[in-house]
Amino acid sequence: MSKPYIRLDKNDAAVLLVDHQTGLLSLVRDIDPDRFKNNVLALADLAKYFQLPTILTTSFEDGPNGPLVPELKETFPDAPYIARPGQINAWDNEDFVKAVKATGKKQLIVAGVVTEVCVAFPTLSALAEDFDVFVVTDASGTFNELTRDSAWDRMSAAGAQLMTWFGVACELHRDWRNDIEGLGQLFSNHIPDYRNLMNSYSKLTSN
Amino acid sequence: MSKPYIRLDKNDAAVLLVDHQTGLLSLVRDIDPDRFKNNVLALADLAKYFQLPTILTTSFEDGPNGPLVPELKETFPDAPYIARPGQINAWDNEDFVKAVKATGKKQLIVAGVVTEVCVAFPTLSALAEDFDVFVVTDASGTFNELTRDSAWDRMSAAGAQLMTWFGVACELHRDWRNDIEGLGQLFSNHIPDYRNLMNSYSKLTSN
Amino acid sequence: MSKPYIRLDKNDAAVLLVDHQTGLLSLVRDIDPDRFKNNVLALADLAKYFQLPTILTTSFEDGPNGPLVPELKETFPDAPYIARPGQINAWDNEDFVKAVKATGKKQLIVAGVVTEVCVAFPTLSALAEDFDVFVVTDASGTFNELTRDSAWDRMSAAGAQLMTWFGVACELHRDWRNDIEGLGQLFSNHIPDYRNLMNSYSKLTSN
Amino acid sequence: MSKPYIRLDKNDAAVLLVDHQTGLLSLVRDIDPDRFKNNVLALADLAKYFQLPTILTTSFEDGPNGPLVPELKETFPDAPYIARPGQINAWDNEDFVKAVKATGKKQLIVAGVVTEVCVAFPTLSALAEDFDVFVVTDASGTFNELTRDSAWDRMSAAGAQLMTWFGVACELHRDWRNDIEGLGQLFSNHIPDYRNLMNSYSKLTSN
Amino acid sequence: MSKPYIRLDKNDAAVLLVDHQTGLLSLVRDIDPDRFKNNVLALADLAKYFQLPTILTTSFEDGPNGPLVPELKETFPDAPYIARPGQINAWDNEDFVKAVKATGKKQLIVAGVVTEVCVAFPTLSALAEDFDVFVVTDASGTFNELTRDSAWDRMSAAGAQLMTWFGVACELHRDWRNDIEGLGQLFSNHIPDYRNLMNSYSKLTSN
Amino acid sequence: MSKPYIRLDKNDAAVLLVDHQTGLLSLVRDIDPDRFKNNVLALADLAKYFQLPTILTTSFEDGPNGPLVPELKETFPDAPYIARPGQINAWDNEDFVKAVKATGKKQLIVAGVVTEVCVAFPTLSALAEDFDVFVVTDASGTFNELTRDSAWDRMSAAGAQLMTWFGVACELHRDWRNDIEGLGQLFSNHIPDYRNLMNSYSKLTSN
Amino acid sequence: MSKPYIRLDKNDAAVLLVDHQTGLLSLVRDIDPDRFKNNVLALADLAKYFQLPTILTTSFEDGPNGPLVPELKETFPDAPYIARPGQINAWDNEDFVKAVKATGKKQLIVAGVVTEVCVAFPTLSALAEDFDVFVVTDASGTFNELTRDSAWDRMSAAGAQLMTWFGVACELHRDWRNDIEGLGQLFSNHIPDYRNLMNSYSKLTSN
Amino acid sequence: MSKPYIRLDKNDAAVLLVDHQTGLLSLVRDIDPDRFKNNVLALADLAKYFQLPTILTTSFEDGPNGPLVPELKETFPDAPYIARPGQINAWDNEDFVKAVKATGKKQLIVAGVVTEVCVAFPTLSALAEDFDVFVVTDASGTFNELTRDSAWDRMSAAGAQLMTWFGVACELHRDWRNDIEGLGQLFSNHIPDYRNLMNSYSKLTSN
Repeated sequence: MSKPYIRLDKNDAAVLLVDHQTGLLSLVRDIDPDRFKNNVLALADLAKYFQLPTILTTSFEDGPNGPLVPELKETFPDAPYIARPGQINAWDNEDFVKAVKATGKKQLIVAGVVTEVCVAFPTLSALAEDFDVFVVTDASGTFNELTRDSAWDRMSAAGAQLMTWFGVACELHRDWRNDIEGLGQLFSNHIPDYRNLMNSYSKLTSN
Repeated sequence: MSKPYIRLDKNDAAVLLVDHQTGLLSLVRDIDPDRFKNNVLALADLAKYFQLPTILTTSFEDGPNGPLVPELKETFPDAPYIARPGQINAWDNEDFVKAVKATGKKQLIVAGVVTEVCVAFPTLSALAEDFDVFVVTDASGTFNELTRDSAWDRMSAAGAQLMTWFGVACELHRDWRNDIEGLGQLFSNHIPDYRNLMNSYSKLTSN
Repeated sequence: MSKPYIRLDKNDAAVLLVDHQTGLLSLVRDIDPDRFKNNVLALADLAKYFQLPTILTTSFEDGPNGPLVPELKETFPDAPYIARPGQINAWDNEDFVKAVKATGKKQLIVAGVVTEVCVAFPTLSALAEDFDVFVVTDASGTFNELTRDSAWDRMSAAGAQLMTWFGVACELHRDWRNDIEGLGQLFSNHIPDYRNLMNSYSKLTSN
Repeated sequence: MSKPYIRLDKNDAAVLLVDHQTGLLSLVRDIDPDRFKNNVLALADLAKYFQLPTILTTSFEDGPNGPLVPELKETFPDAPYIARPGQINAWDNEDFVKAVKATGKKQLIVAGVVTEVCVAFPTLSALAEDFDVFVVTDASGTFNELTRDSAWDRMSAAGAQLMTWFGVACELHRDWRNDIEGLGQLFSNHIPDYRNLMNSYSKLTSN
Repeated sequence: MSKPYIRLDKNDAAVLLVDHQTGLLSLVRDIDPDRFKNNVLALADLAKYFQLPTILTTSFEDGPNGPLVPELKETFPDAPYIARPGQINAWDNEDFVKAVKATGKKQLIVAGVVTEVCVAFPTLSALAEDFDVFVVTDASGTFNELTRDSAWDRMSAAGAQLMTWFGVACELHRDWRNDIEGLGQLFSNHIPDYRNLMNSYSKLTSN
Repeated sequence: MSKPYIRLDKNDAAVLLVDHQTGLLSLVRDIDPDRFKNNVLALADLAKYFQLPTILTTSFEDGPNGPLVPELKETFPDAPYIARPGQINAWDNEDFVKAVKATGKKQLIVAGVVTEVCVAFPTLSALAEDFDVFVVTDASGTFNELTRDSAWDRMSAAGAQLMTWFGVACELHRDWRNDIEGLGQLFSNHIPDYRNLMNSYSKLTSN
Repeated sequence: MSKPYIRLDKNDAAVLLVDHQTGLLSLVRDIDPDRFKNNVLALADLAKYFQLPTILTTSFEDGPNGPLVPELKETFPDAPYIARPGQINAWDNEDFVKAVKATGKKQLIVAGVVTEVCVAFPTLSALAEDFDVFVVTDASGTFNELTRDSAWDRMSAAGAQLMTWFGVACELHRDWRNDIEGLGQLFSNHIPDYRNLMNSYSKLTSN
Repeated sequence: MSKPYIRLDKNDAAVLLVDHQTGLLSLVRDIDPDRFKNNVLALADLAKYFQLPTILTTSFEDGPNGPLVPELKETFPDAPYIARPGQINAWDNEDFVKAVKATGKKQLIVAGVVTEVCVAFPTLSALAEDFDVFVVTDASGTFNELTRDSAWDRMSAAGAQLMTWFGVACELHRDWRNDIEGLGQLFSNHIPDYRNLMNSYSKLTSN
């Protein structure tokens, strides 16, 4: 009666980044801004590193919600980019769903702002269409811990797997030997403690 | 084996506001009073905005529990108002259940004070009669985080969906184009950060 | 696929108080001592008020674990009292299980110290024998929030219902009209905010 | 060797509201937005209620910092309004200091965003010119608790008195009999718990 | 340049309990209600135990603020009781100051609700008249930690000594041998952990 | 529909300690280092005490991850020790799985660093092969509470039982009479509060 | 007007350990027990390491307060040991003061349980006799953070310097070259993170 | 009796960065690593931006403490760099003090790891030699909040001014018009919320 172990597979996974817009980010208060910025960029970097098809979408970017965070656009210059004209649930946008299905992937890695809406709604819709959904909880933000906890409960109960960017990277990579340098760089760029370990190590082994 | 995605539908939803009374509110200590007041009024405003049938009920309002918060009565002057003579679980009150069933709606959006009693009991009863229940966790308050967490666990395990008022509004609205002005106003009135975004935006675009 | 609503029934419920001993209480650090003492005594008072069969049990009370909290012995002078000679899981003690079964009740309300052992073990055992188990989480204490959260997850996943003493009292009482005075007294004695409401009310209505 | 008791006097006090701008408010994360909005408006309302000379100032309001929160402009349509062309410390702006001195008041009640800059700098400058400065800590916001605690320490050590809006209102009012209705209204509008007390009271005494 | 050690002396100390009223207590949210109730009653019990002259005062007790907590009236049936007609700072009430001075004591032990007003104002006034003031911080409550921290800073900077009820009791008692039984009883009644230690000890030494 | 009670049995349990390495430990920030060190050593001591087959594994111990914590190597000098050449999920390492299966045990007690990777991945893999998995949550550490909560949710949903070292010890021991001295020693070494109880007791009973 | 820099000097410092008794330790709830135990033993170890004269004292150790923590007695078998017959303030005990003065030291390093009584009282008394007092805040414990904050404020205002054991060790040692091995061992034994750094370093440099 | 307003002056200020080493950083647990890394680099960037003389120093960088964080060395390739052979207090190192005095500046901006030692010791020493010391609290880290609070109290009482990097930047810059672009860039690089404001603004004004 338990959820089976559906393991992330870099050949069968796509990334959906939903509404990380400069205005909406001011609503995020369940994660410290320095940490949240780092988590979102780490997720973007890993998506690029593993060459996962990535889809960007925004809601009303000409209004108060603001434009997509520029770093995301820069990281994925050629990614499908769906500026939704009004649909709150990205899955209600035909172009978005088409773009998702065009990837041919069954595993969807989702993050966005705010968690209970921009993440939860497409997550629930995708689960209903039998996708496997992996929510990147630490690259998704919302108003406070109470709204977060409610959203997690709803998504988990519906069958989503709750993960964080580091777990996603590790599960996709499987074995350090596939590329020690590359994964190490990703961690060094986004985990200060790991960067320190690597710097201490380099110093000692270069002596 | 997961809960299916039962999506809120403004044509099939009713709102139950249970025991938001001036005395009982002094028991609420799991949410800051400024935020809690705002959340309850936001839920009321969205119920009115979406013209959802809304039912008010109170427990012993002539005693220490105090009268219904006046703002709720003012927002819903014509709503069914069941002053329960003694039943703790509102669902044990025949008039209340009749009023609920009279709406003809299958989706019940519930909030109240205190969470583990006034919200949980009717939620569990309604689930047992095959209603779909959406608990508005941030418009429901209780003694402390421990009592809240227990109540959430019990309701979620019984099949309730945990949501917050912002998610409810977004899921009901579906598409900004249905009424940009109206939804924007609702958010501006109840989300200071969103109000700031809108004010910054207005200033710049009116220049 | 959800847990059904098994509702507490004062005619079918018994209370098990497990290892609330003066030494073991010094281990409890997930709840503030003033609040925890109040919660345990509130649970005892409600058990007495509803005349629920109550069973007391202790572990090694002549050693460092210390004697049963005297207030509990005083509240239930005639209750079955099983001083276990060594079994950590009370359900492994034949006398304890006999005492439970002798009550003829199907619903077990359980609290104790520490949560993940003295509460969780008999809860899991009783569930395995098809009892309905209601854990009183706020009258159960443990080392810290992490140990508590793990214990709650294990018990909830096994089918236990997580409740707190106030919810238990309300679900058992059903209707204030069964005894307004009695329930009010219980709340006044154990909920300072409610006592204040009652005192404010008395003052005004006696003027 | 202690600070003497300098008591707020409504005839000798002015209010300085520094940089409560819609953009800058998104930087405030040491106080929850619902509470912070309420505190700022409460301070504005009390300034108006006590008819204290009030001075508004902003920094770069045509840029990302955004315009002054509209409610403040509306509350004080005729107040001196100094849109500083660049000075970070408002006290470095000649017009601002002139406006302050033009009030003829010795007691300055200061609040703003962010605490360690927009509040602390003019506070320290004013203290250096022998004004008595009362910082309204809960109507001043900043990045996090660490920046707040540092700012408080610096201002307190320099001789500022740390107060909150409720204390300011009470110290200015001195005696309820000066205007029971007016002060009660102020509290009812900005303290949900007090509003509840008043509503419970009204209900009972109107019966 | 430091504050000298002014030591509490049971022959030179009086206790001022300011505005512990049933309505106002609902405003207290910086201390958990179970703990706060216990702290206030502990302070009352120690005042009685050490036979310190004690003065009770309230503000508007016929209105929403509510009556004095009944336990305090019962503990001090013959104490001066000043129901202030309107003065917010108790020290502005002539009868109150007279009652204080009539005790002939130089050391004032003060507690009340809310900290930044009902405690801070008379504390600052009494310090200005050269009394030694000892604020019982844990028997004084207020809206939140931010308002508390501001109030503490203001009172401490003005020369008040911040203490808690346990420290007050110990400093007054000086030597257990003055009355082991009595002090032990006071602690057992108000410190659950100490009560447990005493019960464990009794059990073992009575065997 | 609930998880059945699978009870730890010392004759059917093995312990897997995954990647408790000196470098990786600097990443652990969801548990205080003093407590975490104690929890890990407590788990090691109980594994030894109950003579459970124990398997050690590390990841890249010659690089920045650092060597295995020396105390673990010293406690289990003869345990299978799999220094994985690159597999992130220990279960992907053939030698590791062989070692696990060679124990002939069905119940796996797992702890490691970091929780969402080194613990969660082999846990999910082992569950998929029908092992019973007991995660020792307090001997497993990760970056922060958010990553921990996500990891717990994923493992629990997949069927793992969340426990802490104290619960594991108690469930394995079953009855104090099996060895009072031994279990008491284990608790005294790793639970300061219990050590205090034992020392108080010894003093009194040796008088 | 600031406190001058009085620097700890190992030739002019003595250590006072006040009432670290097995019963009283159950009252300490402002610091986690694993961390607190470590801090107290770290202070003891550093006192021994620097060969500082150390004085032990207890209060009523035959009663519920319990005996001195055995590790302290073992670390200082020949230290003056004053079992006070009743004085709550150790400085009121003649033998204690004599022992302090017999050390001939002017700098007193003080720690104990509970902070606001057993630490604060002798600290204030010693300051009044012109000793320099350094309170080791993290080897001193009390009921909660509120009691701690009040106690710190009182002691700091009276001229005490607030330090923690690590700072004390560093200020006494002055220069690593005085004994690298010894200080490193002290840190390795009491700072898990530092131990990890040393173990990582040893591994790499021994390769 | 208050500290005067000593205002940072970019012509009279130098920056001291003490022991930000890759090993020691693993000890910092009072600030989240993402935030702490950002704060330290922000301080470095502002020092460079304002062309303040900056001095780097390390302790035992060939041992477990690890090398200086490489980014700092890169930002200040020509800064005096004092690798102390053993002195714990950097001020005890003659070269360090010489380097400080060689700057000819009276205002010292200090940050380092850990706060109570590497920051507090040179701060106290410099104050004793009549320097004005500004501690950058958010670019200084230590074991936990308790050690931090003690360190702050000691430094503040000795006359240090507690500031954070943002306040330092603003006080040095004085007027945006001195260089809008430059200061804006600094903030955009180190304050995610400010970057968002700037990006929203650019989008709208470029339309």
